[in-house]
Amino acid sequence: MYFSRNDIDQLDHIYKINLINSITGYKPANLIATKSKAGITNVAVFSSIVHYGSAPPILGFVLRPTTVRRHTFDNIIETGYYTINHINEDIIEDAHHTSAKYPQDISEFNQTKLEEEYKNEFYAPFVTQSAIKIGMKFLQQLEIEANGTILILGEITDLYINDTLIEKDGFVDLMKANTAVINGLDTYAIPTKNKRLTYQRPNK
Amino acid sequence: MYFSRNDIDQLDHIYKINLINSITGYKPANLIATKSKAGITNVAVFSSIVHYGSAPPILGFVLRPTTVRRHTFDNIIETGYYTINHINEDIIEDAHHTSAKYPQDISEFNQTKLEEEYKNEFYAPFVTQSAIKIGMKFLQQLEIEANGTILILGEITDLYINDTLIEKDGFVDLMKANTAVINGLDTYAIPTKNKRLTYQRPNK
Repeated sequence: MYFSRNDIDQLDHIYKINLINSITGYKPANLIATKSKAGITNVAVFSSIVHYGSAPPILGFVLRPTTVRRHTFDNIIETGYYTINHINEDIIEDAHHTSAKYPQDISEFNQTKLEEEYKNEFYAPFVTQSAIKIGMKFLQQLEIEANGTILILGEITDLYINDTLIEKDGFVDLMKANTAVINGLDTYAIPTKNKRLTYQRPNK
Repeated sequence: MYFSRNDIDQLDHIYKINLINSITGYKPANLIATKSKAGITNVAVFSSIVHYGSAPPILGFVLRPTTVRRHTFDNIIETGYYTINHINEDIIEDAHHTSAKYPQDISEFNQTKLEEEYKNEFYAPFVTQSAIKIGMKFLQQLEIEANGTILILGEITDLYINDTLIEKDGFVDLMKANTAVINGLDTYAIPTKNKRLTYQRPNK
């Protein structure tokens, strides 16, 4: 099937967002958790976390500040801290439910079985059920002129990984954790077979 | 296992890049293909493609212009066009081989079984084997001050999807295409079970 740019622009809204959100491939499935200055926690599903560098360790994610994820954005700007927590098979339904539009004074931790936990005096809550939990310090926001979305960059300050997942060379085997991926806006999938390849050099 | 920021900064280089590249979760597996003004094609694996908006349809990806992916960057800036092509199970080895450091005058299309194809007079080549192929027009580059990486934003001009993958509401079922994901720097996985959830509203 072929869609020209003109075809895409004229698609029905729901069809368009399902289509364009599917075509980047599977997306990482994470929960971002924050706490406002007033002490109200927030947790929301995000599929746009990206590695920006290892030294220093920098991760980015994208949000549209006019959506429900506004609470995440406000808390990060207000406090400077947030956590990134992996979604695994056991918490898919609860993780997806965080996309419902709750008012600011209701914590999604109280509306789901997701549990908040505090470690090493880090300000924002971690999600207990996640096999990988990352404490993040806000670095910078970059506004994308073309459509008003915002890229949030942060640096890793704390990293917790279940012991059984890490191999001798630092590789973390996500299949052992039943880590999920997101397809489009509302579908979650689980990889069940994988293959590790080698460092590639040019053919002779 | 706990890593403080100081622990991370002091890790051995290989351990560190394996670790930090694994912890964002599974990443989308795509090939970006370009052609220089001089007519030399290039194709390289990228795991950082992200959706930035559906109306207009904008995608972004991250690169470090000092690496092998320099050729992709140069061709995009020089010509204004590139394609994004999904990696499926059948082409994992060839896709991964594009990470080898070939000189600019050698096309990875000639060093692998990946096939280039041209459609609708679009300047850059598409990858024949990909079930989803996206023609992209360069919009903007944003340099990340913290580490010199570059976010490249582009808009979709052409979109090709195998007919059997699209559902009535625009959702594209990536599992039907055996679409791959990337874990860390060198491991490819295939999702084999998925679940579509509904639009979420707050609990009463």
